[in-house]
Amino acid sequence: MDFAPSLEKLINEFSKLPGVGQKTAQRYAFKIINGTKEEAEAFAKALIEAKDKIHYCSVCGNYTDEDVCEICKNRKAEIVCVVKDPKDVIALEKAREFNWGYHVLHGTISPLKGIMPENLNIKTLLKRINDGEIKELVMALNPDIEGEATAMYIASLVKPMNIKVTRLACGIQAGSEIEYTDYVTLTKAFNDRKPI
Amino acid sequence: MDFAPSLEKLINEFSKLPGVGQKTAQRYAFKIINGTKEEAEAFAKALIEAKDKIHYCSVCGNYTDEDVCEICKNRKAEIVCVVKDPKDVIALEKAREFNWGYHVLHGTISPLKGIMPENLNIKTLLKRINDGEIKELVMALNPDIEGEATAMYIASLVKPMNIKVTRLACGIQAGSEIEYTDYVTLTKAFNDRKPI
Repeated sequence: MDFAPSLEKLINEFSKLPGVGQKTAQRYAFKIINGTKEEAEAFAKALIEAKDKIHYCSVCGNYTDEDVCEICKNRKAEIVCVVKDPKDVIALEKAREFNWGYHVLHGTISPLKGIMPENLNIKTLLKRINDGEIKELVMALNPDIEGEATAMYIASLVKPMNIKVTRLACGIQAGSEIEYTDYVTLTKAFNDRKPI
Repeated sequence: MDFAPSLEKLINEFSKLPGVGQKTAQRYAFKIINGTKEEAEAFAKALIEAKDKIHYCSVCGNYTDEDVCEICKNRKAEIVCVVKDPKDVIALEKAREFNWGYHVLHGTISPLKGIMPENLNIKTLLKRINDGEIKELVMALNPDIEGEATAMYIASLVKPMNIKVTRLACGIQAGSEIEYTDYVTLTKAFNDRKPI
């Protein structure tokens, strides 16, 4: 059916969000239409402001609206997790058991997609290591070809700088069933088996 | 984890949308942050404009950004479906086989929720009937207590005005299985059985 043009436009904007189809976009748009004018304005303002203010932290590359993000400001991190995306920081923060820090690469090396090392946030990582605070880099990159290649590349770069380089363990997932675990994971879990 | 304040605000706005939790809201917000400034501005503009321009059609009560909506403007509707919400118009438009029209009540009578007939868009319906174009009202209200009560109320109002009042048939759903159909529906389907 034909919606009123301004409603159609709003539905169209919502449907650009990841995983949002026409029907969900309609639902969201109706929520806005049924809300107050102030609510719509607050939403619009939040959109503009977030886009205006959010940029990369000059130290770690995570999102921040200041020069240096809260994590870099407040944590003296000797162990730094190297991640692909700010989303990975969120996941790791949930798991955090002590004060590790982060370094966000904003991608992984992928010659096919035209992403080369110089397109990644690696320079500031080297600077951080040179500054001498970091004792260990933990490669927290996805266990796929691009993640492994990037981890290897960075490891080869920083090893001469005399710091420890590790990566997250690969193995069976917490709560999973061995019956349904793929053989690559099982092989890795077997190879990395630990004494009990 | 703590997000940068302006990112937090945007996530918060997204999480007010129906069915959107913290994680989905984060996903949406990251989409905006990763997009261009122009895209964020277009989205913000669509929000403001939709809320500014969209109001109820002066004839049928559906959403429009003009005085009279496209449907009322272009269709001479002798049969009018009375619906609760603009969302119901969308569903019925998909089923539409000929040029029926709509009248949106924006609710159903519910004394418990404080919604009385005078809170609904009924006056303009009576005016439309008085104007003489409508030959039949089809009650397309949800088959629940409030929907039935509203249908009965409107029927009692308009019957003296000498027009036909009907309601959507109740019965088994297309593609459903009788085994799993509830007994209320089966009773209604039995009572409304049709010769073949």
